Amino acid sequence: MLRREFIQITGIGMVSSGLTTVIAMAEEKKASDKAKFELGMASYTLRKFNLEQTIAMTKRLGLKYICLKDFHLPLKSSQEAIEKAKAMIKDSGLVLYACGVIYMKTEADVTQAFDYAKQAGIKMIVGVPNPELLGLVEKKVAEYDIGVAIHNHGPGDQLYPTPESVYEKIKMLDKRIGLCIDIGHTQRSGIDPSQAAEKYADRLMDVHIKDVSAATGEGTTVEMGRGVIDIVKFIKTLVAINFSGVTAFEYEKDETDPLPGTAESVGYVRGVLASI
Amino acid sequence: MLRREFIQITGIGMVSSGLTTVIAMAEEKKASDKAKFELGMASYTLRKFNLEQTIAMTKRLGLKYICLKDFHLPLKSSQEAIEKAKAMIKDSGLVLYACGVIYMKTEADVTQAFDYAKQAGIKMIVGVPNPELLGLVEKKVAEYDIGVAIHNHGPGDQLYPTPESVYEKIKMLDKRIGLCIDIGHTQRSGIDPSQAAEKYADRLMDVHIKDVSAATGEGTTVEMGRGVIDIVKFIKTLVAINFSGVTAFEYEKDETDPLPGTAESVGYVRGVLASI
Repeated sequence: MLRREFIQITGIGMVSSGLTTVIAMAEEKKASDKAKFELGMASYTLRKFNLEQTIAMTKRLGLKYICLKDFHLPLKSSQEAIEKAKAMIKDSGLVLYACGVIYMKTEADVTQAFDYAKQAGIKMIVGVPNPELLGLVEKKVAEYDIGVAIHNHGPGDQLYPTPESVYEKIKMLDKRIGLCIDIGHTQRSGIDPSQAAEKYADRLMDVHIKDVSAATGEGTTVEMGRGVIDIVKFIKTLVAINFSGVTAFEYEKDETDPLPGTAESVGYVRGVLASI
Repeated sequence: MLRREFIQITGIGMVSSGLTTVIAMAEEKKASDKAKFELGMASYTLRKFNLEQTIAMTKRLGLKYICLKDFHLPLKSSQEAIEKAKAMIKDSGLVLYACGVIYMKTEADVTQAFDYAKQAGIKMIVGVPNPELLGLVEKKVAEYDIGVAIHNHGPGDQLYPTPESVYEKIKMLDKRIGLCIDIGHTQRSGIDPSQAAEKYADRLMDVHIKDVSAATGEGTTVEMGRGVIDIVKFIKTLVAINFSGVTAFEYEKDETDPLPGTAESVGYVRGVLASI
């Protein structure tokens, strides 16, 4: 569907009788000129490195936005440790836009996550709250004015395998509760991430972007462009739905040497954005 | 110019009176489906690494074609050493499509380069022969049936600063002598590499692809997409002129740690190719 687009014709080359065929000289408006989203780093990618290295690698890739995983700032950190990390990130020029993925299995986990985010000055938790805790989560969202983007983890995830399984549980809740669509896990569930993004656009708050080797539970992360996900279609979809959040690279492969594969993925998305 | 293309219209949405405006539903044929060229590695990128590491890094990037710089196989190598390197590359699955850049300042240099290429089973030398040696080069090309793609080095290069300066010296010679357009050095000379590729398409044999920070002599290599070269236009041009050689990544930056920047560049070009 996205390959068929409205194109503004600025000059006509030839119009055949009956208008069955038109060969036209056209100037196509670039879709990416309208892109409202930013590219970022999901720091799970850099889980084998400390915060200083994580900041340096994120900056080397030319990314500005970072979603911090607890490897880089444990949930039980002291206020002093949180302040120090917050300052390090701010001083580096990066924007700490989110934290996660944070699992919330108990009420105490929910309280801890919101306190942690508040202390770090973070406005969105990418999380996996147990469904029975969603009532409490909604109260905390209102109390702290911090959003929660629920992350789907694909086949094998008992709570939130797909974007739909998230949406069905949050659609009646506070609008600050929404989806972080992980496009790899979505594709591994046999679901087209572009269709999911379009369908749940009203509650799409965050994206974990990657590619996977197969559209089944067997699929694993690969360098973007080498897998089975139609990335061009997905990026066009994000533009079409006016997504204005962050699309964060989460590259699970090569955990001790993730920079080349992440860089290839970042380059790929930038190449797509420059072309569409 | 390349942003204005002929588009085949497969359905008409609305045609206003007088045909001054047409909003049409169009199906655009993907340009990259017609791409006849391959992506490769110019091993100068990996000059601080040995041949084994160079092969491993090239394969990690998913590239198949390699242009070997003498760091990885010295010009004065014994026949045994050449055979060994040739076998290593073949066994790895890579294709040794060219060698260079090889400078040829004397008749002995020309003879050495052709003997080296012949022994290694290489069909193209990417080289810089002094202009007064072009007669000898032409004889060797005919004798060995090995092509020579002359590489431009931008402002400061006394012999071949621009693609034009190459073309003017070789246009009357054997057609197996042509150009390796280095798009970085071309842009640094203030020349649009797309225009150069189009203009000298009949003799374009090889491409060194990269991006540069400025369209002047001060420009240096940067990750593709971060510099001043219109890469999308250039890739579209290669498709449009039916270029059927190799487009090799030559990333001069970060010589002791070139993989991330090269990977980002490879990803960028693949993203463009997937989108156009």
